[in-house]
Amino acid sequence: MQATPAPITKLIDEFSRLPGIGPKTASRLTFYLLRSSPEQAQSLAEALQELHEKVVFCSRCFHIDERDPCAFCTNENRDRSIICVVEEPLDVLAIERTRDYHGLYHVLHGTIAPTEGIGPEDLKIAELVERVRSSDPKVREIIIATNPNLEGEATAMYISRQFDGSGIKLTRLARGLPVGGDLEYADEITLSRALSGRSEM
Amino acid sequence: MQATPAPITKLIDEFSRLPGIGPKTASRLTFYLLRSSPEQAQSLAEALQELHEKVVFCSRCFHIDERDPCAFCTNENRDRSIICVVEEPLDVLAIERTRDYHGLYHVLHGTIAPTEGIGPEDLKIAELVERVRSSDPKVREIIIATNPNLEGEATAMYISRQFDGSGIKLTRLARGLPVGGDLEYADEITLSRALSGRSEM
Repeated sequence: MQATPAPITKLIDEFSRLPGIGPKTASRLTFYLLRSSPEQAQSLAEALQELHEKVVFCSRCFHIDERDPCAFCTNENRDRSIICVVEEPLDVLAIERTRDYHGLYHVLHGTIAPTEGIGPEDLKIAELVERVRSSDPKVREIIIATNPNLEGEATAMYISRQFDGSGIKLTRLARGLPVGGDLEYADEITLSRALSGRSEM
Repeated sequence: MQATPAPITKLIDEFSRLPGIGPKTASRLTFYLLRSSPEQAQSLAEALQELHEKVVFCSRCFHIDERDPCAFCTNENRDRSIICVVEEPLDVLAIERTRDYHGLYHVLHGTIAPTEGIGPEDLKIAELVERVRSSDPKVREIIIATNPNLEGEATAMYISRQFDGSGIKLTRLARGLPVGGDLEYADEITLSRALSGRSEM
């Protein structure tokens, strides 16, 4: 058995390290790029190099941007008295797509997950507490928009305890049936949440 | 709605250009790399840059390697009187994994596909004919290992016609039930091929 050329093996290995990409897909992508023009591989390589060079974390909200502080934190049109706490930068983009939120963000960069050894000190929680304490104008509301799963709920609970007695309103995104979803296929926990959170018509 | 930083959009776009990677997967990969160490994005970028720089096509068999002629064509232990004709370099690797073939290869880089405007002149068929003609030692057998589909069959037919009257043995890989497969789920064409190609026990 003759070996595959090293540069090909190397690229297959690098692709395989990405989440959700197995060795088969990695090899398919590699041979696709080999067949395509060198420019395509080159421009993907450049985009990869620029990612960490040009993207920085905002030192206030820890969202990503090309500058620090980020475009949210410096935008005078955003409501500075509301902070929406999310797990990841992708969540910020998801909420922005609704066009319904005009406050600021705070990105935790993960959730409390004891099984993976991730505690509150590994997240940007202390930074949130300090940010809220020193905020001017005062923060009225913190929307805890962590994911509606075990880790997300635990993280939401932990954060809300940090603000006990602060007088700040703490809210959580509504749980219920997804719009366009099918009641028949909803899991029982979602359905039970949708029932308990039912609203008058 | 605030825009995503340009370097992120750029990387998402570049990933999306790869086959089988949609915008969602592309964005997942991008944010994964953003969270990981800069070294991971860097080493993927390097592997991409080296792909076209270091990999060349063999001028005899058109397989890929770091040198020309390739390791197969220069390996004195391979049987030079048999040539296995395949569509893509990946097919060479698949056949090598069987460890059962010890001849040379010839990579066509595609199949005849009139609907996509790919004719015999776009493949390395003329090069195969010339290679076989001038080969020393003489070629005894050509195994046409194109894929068992419409394009593969048409290409195999076309190639075999080029060697009409040459006295060279032309063979095709056996068609039949995949080992470990289930007769019940085999399509009728495969099953019919398996029947007509049945062998004595």
